[in-house]
Amino acid sequence: MTTVDVAAHLRTMRTQVPLVQCITNTVVQQFSANVLLAAGASPAMLDHEADAAQFARIADGILVNFGTATSHQLLAADAATAAAEQSGTPWVLDPVSYGGVEHRTVHIRRLAHSGPTCIRGNASEIAALAGAGAGGRGIESTDEVDAVLDHAVRLAEVTGAIVAVSGARDAIVTTDPDAPGRASIARVGGGSALMPLTVGTGCSLAALTAAYLGTRRTPAAEARHDRFAAVVAAHAHFAATGERAARTAEGPGSFAVAFLDALHAVAEDDLTAVDVTVDDVTVDPVERTRR
Amino acid sequence: MTTVDVAAHLRTMRTQVPLVQCITNTVVQQFSANVLLAAGASPAMLDHEADAAQFARIADGILVNFGTATSHQLLAADAATAAAEQSGTPWVLDPVSYGGVEHRTVHIRRLAHSGPTCIRGNASEIAALAGAGAGGRGIESTDEVDAVLDHAVRLAEVTGAIVAVSGARDAIVTTDPDAPGRASIARVGGGSALMPLTVGTGCSLAALTAAYLGTRRTPAAEARHDRFAAVVAAHAHFAATGERAARTAEGPGSFAVAFLDALHAVAEDDLTAVDVTVDDVTVDPVERTRR
Amino acid sequence: MTTVDVAAHLRTMRTQVPLVQCITNTVVQQFSANVLLAAGASPAMLDHEADAAQFARIADGILVNFGTATSHQLLAADAATAAAEQSGTPWVLDPVSYGGVEHRTVHIRRLAHSGPTCIRGNASEIAALAGAGAGGRGIESTDEVDAVLDHAVRLAEVTGAIVAVSGARDAIVTTDPDAPGRASIARVGGGSALMPLTVGTGCSLAALTAAYLGTRRTPAAEARHDRFAAVVAAHAHFAATGERAARTAEGPGSFAVAFLDALHAVAEDDLTAVDVTVDDVTVDPVERTRR
Repeated sequence: MTTVDVAAHLRTMRTQVPLVQCITNTVVQQFSANVLLAAGASPAMLDHEADAAQFARIADGILVNFGTATSHQLLAADAATAAAEQSGTPWVLDPVSYGGVEHRTVHIRRLAHSGPTCIRGNASEIAALAGAGAGGRGIESTDEVDAVLDHAVRLAEVTGAIVAVSGARDAIVTTDPDAPGRASIARVGGGSALMPLTVGTGCSLAALTAAYLGTRRTPAAEARHDRFAAVVAAHAHFAATGERAARTAEGPGSFAVAFLDALHAVAEDDLTAVDVTVDDVTVDPVERTRR
Repeated sequence: MTTVDVAAHLRTMRTQVPLVQCITNTVVQQFSANVLLAAGASPAMLDHEADAAQFARIADGILVNFGTATSHQLLAADAATAAAEQSGTPWVLDPVSYGGVEHRTVHIRRLAHSGPTCIRGNASEIAALAGAGAGGRGIESTDEVDAVLDHAVRLAEVTGAIVAVSGARDAIVTTDPDAPGRASIARVGGGSALMPLTVGTGCSLAALTAAYLGTRRTPAAEARHDRFAAVVAAHAHFAATGERAARTAEGPGSFAVAFLDALHAVAEDDLTAVDVTVDDVTVDPVERTRR
Repeated sequence: MTTVDVAAHLRTMRTQVPLVQCITNTVVQQFSANVLLAAGASPAMLDHEADAAQFARIADGILVNFGTATSHQLLAADAATAAAEQSGTPWVLDPVSYGGVEHRTVHIRRLAHSGPTCIRGNASEIAALAGAGAGGRGIESTDEVDAVLDHAVRLAEVTGAIVAVSGARDAIVTTDPDAPGRASIARVGGGSALMPLTVGTGCSLAALTAAYLGTRRTPAAEARHDRFAAVVAAHAHFAATGERAARTAEGPGSFAVAFLDALHAVAEDDLTAVDVTVDDVTVDPVERTRR
């Protein structure tokens, strides 16, 4: 069984303060920036086509989320992810609302097959992106994580990305091009039922995942497992935070406040205490569209 | 005297979790989404011309607010409201800043006469939209609700919309094309003096009104009164919330947090306890521009 | 030694409730509006080219911040600042991210030399704008205030603007075209180490500075010193607020909430208690590009 040292990833992330370029929707820009600052990373919300590529070369990690998809953001994402590919900068795709409406769906699908390091969404979005289901109606998810696990594995195989499915018990899936038919699946428990009542918790988890992925800590030989572990650690950070915040929250408003406090306060022990399991499994191999 | 069962509307809204498409200004997108989530509805902030019409066919209710009026949002509002008319989906117009500057004024006036289910604004905006006064300088209101009641009735008659005026004691006005010269006026007391110190309270009340209007609960024969009652119930939800939040708030920051907590916590009894009166009155009939 | 009656400026600002037009980035629009409301001013976030000039003639003060620089905002800033010059309305330039990427850098540099009443940034941004250093990577500052003081003086001389540098101990610099080689430098201590962990504290300080500058209280003969004092008072308001908020905050989330409460609660005595010093110094004269 694969193990993940989430505490070590937290320590390194806070030491390095990775700079995360967020091309994300205007609804959650403030909350996502505050999440990154509170967790220990550095946000930069540059989403304009005119400077996205240039900034992507400075950034340690990049987030793309088309929740409010303007032409500027669509063009900025293309420029930033192309620059990221050249420089080897990790980037995360958040397929928010995928499948609900055609406009963004076209662009999300194209980007999903353009080499993202990680795709993080809710169950509906991941299933729809894998070719099953109708997608979400917005930020709510109607499918459960367990029900879409096969779709997540398939999406990971086809795109080469680490695929993270958010829900009551998150799933993070990675496959290995050198070992077709094998996958590692991490499950991360915790969080709080109040998280879906605060807008931007999912979107900012994707931003934090880009921060963890943007933390450089191992030689290239270990890069694949290390990136998987980084995504797991980001989810463990959120799970520990959600549990801690729920202890004092009196509703969705005070939960969001306590959540930012807790992101900052959680220590390595808190992350180690999170219920994280990793299983290596056998899956049906599929043909990759990329990488 | 007409009565409104605000508790029943709250119960049905929370049971149905209406999906509200918000084409609203970027200043209040986060707060408005959190208000809808906390109250029991589901927000979707899709405001791009490319998918607004398609999403409007999925949404249960629609909000249009041109506080930060981009070309995308102006075009999105036209597309969404045209789709809403075809599908019978209720939509709310928030004429924020109407009269202050020409750019948005043209578009707000046109939409006001394009069949909104409800127009919700402060006293200055409603008076200006009815053809009196100079409009607001932004989010502040300089006229009192009582002083603009005649203008609100006239605006309701001319546009066919339910007209809601926010203030110390809100007024909600409806007229009936089958009974010219008659109007129902509801007054809703409560709230808190801290509400105007939190940006987005008015804008998010308009969003919540779209949520209540998007809750389907009665046969078509009762639709007119039911929609009036839905608007009153949304205002009662806000009034009860404002009072509750003010009890623990120590200033505008903690008020906004307590407000989200209270939106979630208020129960049917709290809404029933709100000071709501409804009077059927005789008014001077005017010619409708619409419906 | 020059003295500044910060308490008198607070009193007048709250009495007049100046209307501040904010052309600012979408990340901090909500927080900036709430900061203005809590402090006692009135925000208007109109940032569209189609109405920016018209609104600038109504506004008491204007803020320009290109953090998320859309074409609309770039054009709106040109229109609003041109209108401000005609009407004598004070405006503040926040050179956020200056030097990091080329797109906004061109526009920020041009505006810096177009007659802003005040330029407010962190140490990296001010140094870069004065022609030294590489600029920031986003919202974080890597240089300290003391290290860039000469650059701030030079920038004040060249542009004719009051230059404010935010940091652990803020510096506010003004020069006088009638007395080349002389400068006044105010230092304002206080604040909290939690301020950089909340997105928008710097941006909203620039907005509040526009509010204080938009408060009219003295004959024209005293205008130069009065504007300097207004900028100092805005910084003292923030310093007192940060200290007060830090007393009860448990992390960055509760700090942001307490900050808005404290902005509203601080009294004239609190501002008088802030550590403010003003020194008149001799500096090397440089040639102005403007005014």
